[in-house]
Amino acid sequence: MPTIPPLPPTLAWRGDLHGHLELLDQTLLPHQRLVLALHDVDGVIEAIASLRVRGAPAIGVAAAYGLVLGLRALSPLREAFVDTARSVAARITAARPTAVNLQWALDRCLDAARSEPSLASVFGEAGQIHQDEVVMSDRIGQHGKPCVPPGGTVLTHCNTGRLATVGDGTALAVLFAAWRDGVRFRVFADETRPLLQGARLTALELAAAGIPVEVLADAAAAGLIARGLVQMVIVGADRIARNGDFANKVGTYGLALACAAHRVPFYVAAPLSTLDLRLADGLGIPIEERDGNEVTTLAGQPICPPGIGARNPAFDVTPGKLVSAFITDRGVLQPPFDAAIKGTFAVGR
Amino acid sequence: MPTIPPLPPTLAWRGDLHGHLELLDQTLLPHQRLVLALHDVDGVIEAIASLRVRGAPAIGVAAAYGLVLGLRALSPLREAFVDTARSVAARITAARPTAVNLQWALDRCLDAARSEPSLASVFGEAGQIHQDEVVMSDRIGQHGKPCVPPGGTVLTHCNTGRLATVGDGTALAVLFAAWRDGVRFRVFADETRPLLQGARLTALELAAAGIPVEVLADAAAAGLIARGLVQMVIVGADRIARNGDFANKVGTYGLALACAAHRVPFYVAAPLSTLDLRLADGLGIPIEERDGNEVTTLAGQPICPPGIGARNPAFDVTPGKLVSAFITDRGVLQPPFDAAIKGTFAVGR
Repeated sequence: MPTIPPLPPTLAWRGDLHGHLELLDQTLLPHQRLVLALHDVDGVIEAIASLRVRGAPAIGVAAAYGLVLGLRALSPLREAFVDTARSVAARITAARPTAVNLQWALDRCLDAARSEPSLASVFGEAGQIHQDEVVMSDRIGQHGKPCVPPGGTVLTHCNTGRLATVGDGTALAVLFAAWRDGVRFRVFADETRPLLQGARLTALELAAAGIPVEVLADAAAAGLIARGLVQMVIVGADRIARNGDFANKVGTYGLALACAAHRVPFYVAAPLSTLDLRLADGLGIPIEERDGNEVTTLAGQPICPPGIGARNPAFDVTPGKLVSAFITDRGVLQPPFDAAIKGTFAVGR
Repeated sequence: MPTIPPLPPTLAWRGDLHGHLELLDQTLLPHQRLVLALHDVDGVIEAIASLRVRGAPAIGVAAAYGLVLGLRALSPLREAFVDTARSVAARITAARPTAVNLQWALDRCLDAARSEPSLASVFGEAGQIHQDEVVMSDRIGQHGKPCVPPGGTVLTHCNTGRLATVGDGTALAVLFAAWRDGVRFRVFADETRPLLQGARLTALELAAAGIPVEVLADAAAAGLIARGLVQMVIVGADRIARNGDFANKVGTYGLALACAAHRVPFYVAAPLSTLDLRLADGLGIPIEERDGNEVTTLAGQPICPPGIGARNPAFDVTPGKLVSAFITDRGVLQPPFDAAIKGTFAVGR
């Protein structure tokens, strides 16, 4: 087991209202640890679009701080404050269309701006979102840890740990919490092409925590599940509809099909901020199509013949009926979610 | 659409009994076209084990020529000829445990050695296997071409074309034959991690034939199938059991599950030499586990943190019940295969 030095925080606000956002550039991990200092909203938008910061909860927090930076530069008059905030927020939202937390965090900041149209108010809300997400990670871990099979092998996809959030993670928070309680298991981490968040980030985080991890080609997962080598699959989510259909990193749906075929428990771990109550089902979830170059090159090196293009959907949608349970910050839930959280949460008001 | 110059043959025997085997080194494609001249069996075994030559039909032919080279070097006495041939063949078989064609081709050569214990006899049989495989590819194409949906999108996995055989291919032979008949369609090629046979080889062969092709991360396939963007999936096979369960490149099983969930036709194209009549079902198929370095590096570059290992099964097994039809050199068949080919073919006698 390799020894991995602790990672810098995924993101941190440095200083007061006049400070700046620090982001660990995740595109360079595990080979290089570069902390970016971002002083304007354009830098934050670029970082979100380029996946320098990624993971639904982390991009929500980054977006909130990005709104602060954008409003600070514009210094709108009090009477134009909300409209200006809305237009800056719209630019940030466009950076990544699938994850709803980004929009949820910005909506919370816009609500704050409507109550009190000032930079201090939006900054205060951004800090509150940051704190809330830390608590959320911890709660997901606590609620989910009894699901981890002692002595078993857990398979996960993409990265859902500290790097995807500002706390312990979502799906990985469950594994970290179980491990701290003395439950012993091992992990298969899908490498997660094209951008290899599993091979680069999940392997790094699990090894740093001392949890045994092996990486897999994504396509190997179904066969290993069929051979009885996996006792639990746990993934995150980027947007969840009311009936439990959810979008997550492309490849999640195939895992869910394999789990259903072989009766392996398939869990989704996500904060309730990932729920989009406006959506009855997964059909309405927009699927981000990213540049084909992410598939046809690696670290600048072409892997395909010259001139060949690629389809590169960043997400897929998994039907809620394939999910054993949703591990959330408010407990282990089953869809439909309307009743469970009626009145306690809404997106896009 | 890029213009791709024609590729050298996958393999060719140069000269008479005293000649040598030429192999196009597929590990260097598409960036470099290097033809290896192999004069001894160790070179052939290394080429098979390293996937310089790959694809079930092609490694069968390479193995037969490898046996010729091994026997030529040893020049066994006539009375020791069969035993020597058997021991050389066993060394070649061990290079790749899953694909049965390798063993089938060697068994044909051993039969020839038993009938007439001479190098000329084995060399003649190797040449005959080579010719048979060319005819086989053509027949698969002819039988399968009506299955291709005009105007549709066909998804394929790994490489099953000219580079995987000594003719037109297996699954790709079907596409080439339909295209030559004027059927127009486009192809999604799974990149096929870890060794990227789809991105490197299938994209190359389809583009060279003028067939529109886009590459995908393997994990993207299920979501595209769910979204109705795929009208047919066609793959090859490395070993088929009597009930239709079959081993193929890892990732095939996940495609079959997605096709079943969305009623997309799922075809397997393979010569009947891929059938292992000794096996009642897929449980008996050995799954080759390859070096984890193939996963933890991509195009020669490390992608994981140092010290992280990988699981790397090269194949998975798909239940025959998920297969719409088997497109073979003897027609479009359904399992069980016992009756269809009783007495016409057997492995491992």
